[in-house]
Amino acid sequence: SLRDVMETLPAPDLAAVFEDLPPEKLPVLFRLCPKDLAAEIFAELTPETQQNLIDGLTDKELKAVVDELFVDDATDLVEEMPASVVKRILAQADPATRRMINELLKYPEDSAGGVMTTEFMELRPDMTVTQAMDAIRANGIDKETINNCYVTDKDRTLIGVVSLRALVLEKDPKRTIRDLMDANVVSVSTTTDQEDVSQLFEKYGFLAIPVVDAEKRLVGIVTIDDAISILQDEASEDFAKMNAIGPSDKPYFKQSMWDLYKSRAPWLVFLMISATFSSLVIRGYESALAAVTVLTAYIPMLTDAGGNAGSQSTSTIIRGMAVGDIKPHDLPRILWRECRVALLCGLTLAVCNFGKLLIFDRVSAPVALVVCLTLMCTVLLSQLIGGLLPVLAEKLKIDPAVMASPLITTIVDTTTLLVYFNIAKAVLKI
Amino acid sequence: SLRDVMETLPAPDLAAVFEDLPPEKLPVLFRLCPKDLAAEIFAELTPETQQNLIDGLTDKELKAVVDELFVDDATDLVEEMPASVVKRILAQADPATRRMINELLKYPEDSAGGVMTTEFMELRPDMTVTQAMDAIRANGIDKETINNCYVTDKDRTLIGVVSLRALVLEKDPKRTIRDLMDANVVSVSTTTDQEDVSQLFEKYGFLAIPVVDAEKRLVGIVTIDDAISILQDEASEDFAKMNAIGPSDKPYFKQSMWDLYKSRAPWLVFLMISATFSSLVIRGYESALAAVTVLTAYIPMLTDAGGNAGSQSTSTIIRGMAVGDIKPHDLPRILWRECRVALLCGLTLAVCNFGKLLIFDRVSAPVALVVCLTLMCTVLLSQLIGGLLPVLAEKLKIDPAVMASPLITTIVDTTTLLVYFNIAKAVLKI
Ligand SMILES: [Mg+2]
Ligand SMILES: [Mg+2]
Ligand SMILES: [Mg+2]
Ligand SMILES: [Mg+2]
Ligand SMILES: [Mg+2]
Ligand SMILES: [Mg+2]
Ligand SMILES: [Mg+2]
Ligand SMILES: [Mg+2]
Ligand SMILES: [Mg+2]
Ligand SMILES: [Mg+2]
Ligand SMILES: [Mg+2]
Ligand SMILES: [Mg+2]
Ligand SMILES: [Mg+2]
Repeated sequence: SLRDVMETLPAPDLAAVFEDLPPEKLPVLFRLCPKDLAAEIFAELTPETQQNLIDGLTDKELKAVVDELFVDDATDLVEEMPASVVKRILAQADPATRRMINELLKYPEDSAGGVMTTEFMELRPDMTVTQAMDAIRANGIDKETINNCYVTDKDRTLIGVVSLRALVLEKDPKRTIRDLMDANVVSVSTTTDQEDVSQLFEKYGFLAIPVVDAEKRLVGIVTIDDAISILQDEASEDFAKMNAIGPSDKPYFKQSMWDLYKSRAPWLVFLMISATFSSLVIRGYESALAAVTVLTAYIPMLTDAGGNAGSQSTSTIIRGMAVGDIKPHDLPRILWRECRVALLCGLTLAVCNFGKLLIFDRVSAPVALVVCLTLMCTVLLSQLIGGLLPVLAEKLKIDPAVMASPLITTIVDTTTLLVYFNIAKAVLKI
Repeated sequence: SLRDVMETLPAPDLAAVFEDLPPEKLPVLFRLCPKDLAAEIFAELTPETQQNLIDGLTDKELKAVVDELFVDDATDLVEEMPASVVKRILAQADPATRRMINELLKYPEDSAGGVMTTEFMELRPDMTVTQAMDAIRANGIDKETINNCYVTDKDRTLIGVVSLRALVLEKDPKRTIRDLMDANVVSVSTTTDQEDVSQLFEKYGFLAIPVVDAEKRLVGIVTIDDAISILQDEASEDFAKMNAIGPSDKPYFKQSMWDLYKSRAPWLVFLMISATFSSLVIRGYESALAAVTVLTAYIPMLTDAGGNAGSQSTSTIIRGMAVGDIKPHDLPRILWRECRVALLCGLTLAVCNFGKLLIFDRVSAPVALVVCLTLMCTVLLSQLIGGLLPVLAEKLKIDPAVMASPLITTIVDTTTLLVYFNIAKAVLKI
């Protein structure tokens, strides 16, 4: 039967089935879901589908879902729904859940407080292993994870972490948690940026990370499943920004025409207007171009070479800063490296191109010289600008990802043309 | 003392300290490390530092490290070291470890087999909860994780998964594992690509995923810490490829000048040579340009608009395919969406630019018309090409990430110029 088929599918796969159903069918299928799966499936749905589904559920059914959700997911739900739905959700949630949701709503969405859950396993340092295991058996069922348990003193100050593994493998049941715990516990504050939080997961291999308030009291944990989503979303955000796309948190096929338009057109307009400078430069040197018309033929090649070289540096630095390999104070080292590698790359391009210009394009040697000197200068300038801009952005608290290919291309176009025409005037005496 | 300080630092932070030491100091500090941390630190070091450290260790010390490493990390080590060091490592490893390393070496580095470890916790279906917990207490200490235990029948065929959480929280100690386990276990084959493996972690929220051979026998597990590294490395690889950089697995400051040069110069040369087509087009229409010299001024703006529009589509599709939102069979839907959004964007650019050309640049209306018609056509063509190329690449088993901004820019330059000059000839009758 349908129900049997559903029992064999993991929640995310069932959620995908729900996404493709018409709204009126959603509650029907949802009622067929095995109880323990229902909340898991619900948490995986897009806000749009969540809302359609809620509209078809009775208050009692809604209450069952909300109470079964982990608080971080319940909070996300409340953040996404329109006011009328929020009212219904909060009215159905039991008082303890409602209180926790209201607590979590206070934190900015992309801070540790905004992504943490309050359902963690707490132990006391003076418990024995036996007492700790009893506490876990009594309270563990409602916790998002019990693989790591957090040790707090009577003020709820975080003083250590102990893994379920260590508790299970411990041979002496009388040993205390204080003895067994790792007191060098890495924690984050509620205000830590979610991107920094998820980088700690990658660096340290944690399964969860505790979140403390300003008084060092344990208030929540961030779990690794959410950290992975954050890492992927942040990388997607960077891919978008680096290609002149306004960020969107919807998958491609969930975005409307208007969403796509809104995320693309403003950047295209901005970059088009910025390109005014390159037009001005060309119009300023119209007479030089008229004197040696062949120069025009190499404008796209030169500006592209500059754009490509600049993109290489800038994307290297942006990604390096995103994964934590590069810090803003490394700027002098960056510029020195970029300068040397740019000279090598520029020289290579110039040599290859000089041969090609003389042999295949049959241009005169002075023109070939102008093009190749410009190539060298533009690669050098582009890679220096490409190394500089993301670091400057970071220092000015602008997202370095916007300093990528499209912007660099536009900036580099103008500098390349200025260099080109000035070298041409000097070498060709025009 | 130094040792006390070291005890308070997590392994990845200590590894960072090692990276900055001169080679001769490495063994000295390593000997000061608390035993249980030593292997953890070792696994975090770069291959270069691992080799320097090994050169300073006695055979006995090396043996201690190798036996303490998890087999996946030991295998990575063997893959990275020169032959003489490998010989020493294998001579010191105990026979069981050596056999496992040799087994794992058979799998391609970026397959599930290449990233899995063989140190997983195996249970039988007819064990009771008590027996299972005893087995875990007896054998769990050497396993990379016991948070999930894998259930196999007597042929070692994988038949289920049970979490330590479920075992600990189970109230009836006589229940069998068969009863408690989840029989719908998601597994991958040894040949599955590591990128596909790590996407499953994101989709399903697993902490580990079992790997089976062609006969469905359980041979290893991939753990989430390695999955996160893979996701980050694959994203970094895409960032590099999408910006015309040959991939490198070293952090920026660990790359030599020669590494940087090798990863950048070939792409720059290739793209420069591809730009020959745009030069040919311009030289082919030299007389048209000479007749209306102002046309030259808008070449960079037009080619950049095409490049930017193309980058937007292509990066959207590349990232969508990387995170699994977009499949190659979606191509018709992609082209239809890109076509509509491109018309909207193109129209917006054309309208803005028409005003700017007439009011600020004071060009004649026919010239403004030529530029704006070209803008619309180039945005449409670019976003269609940008939507098409990554999907085609995927179908041809080329990495779609190379079909990004730099290549699109070069392709789009030529099409833009052809459109521009032909519209100019038609409208301006030159
Ligand atoms: Mg609850
Ligand atoms: Mg939230
Ligand atoms: Mg999730
Ligand atoms: Mg969560
Ligand atoms: Mg962000
Ligand atoms: Mg970011
Ligand atoms: Mg260009
Ligand atoms: Mg071992
Ligand atoms: Mg490996
Ligand atoms: Mg591992
Ligand atoms: Mg690691
Ligand atoms: Mg790959
Ligand atoms: Mg890839």
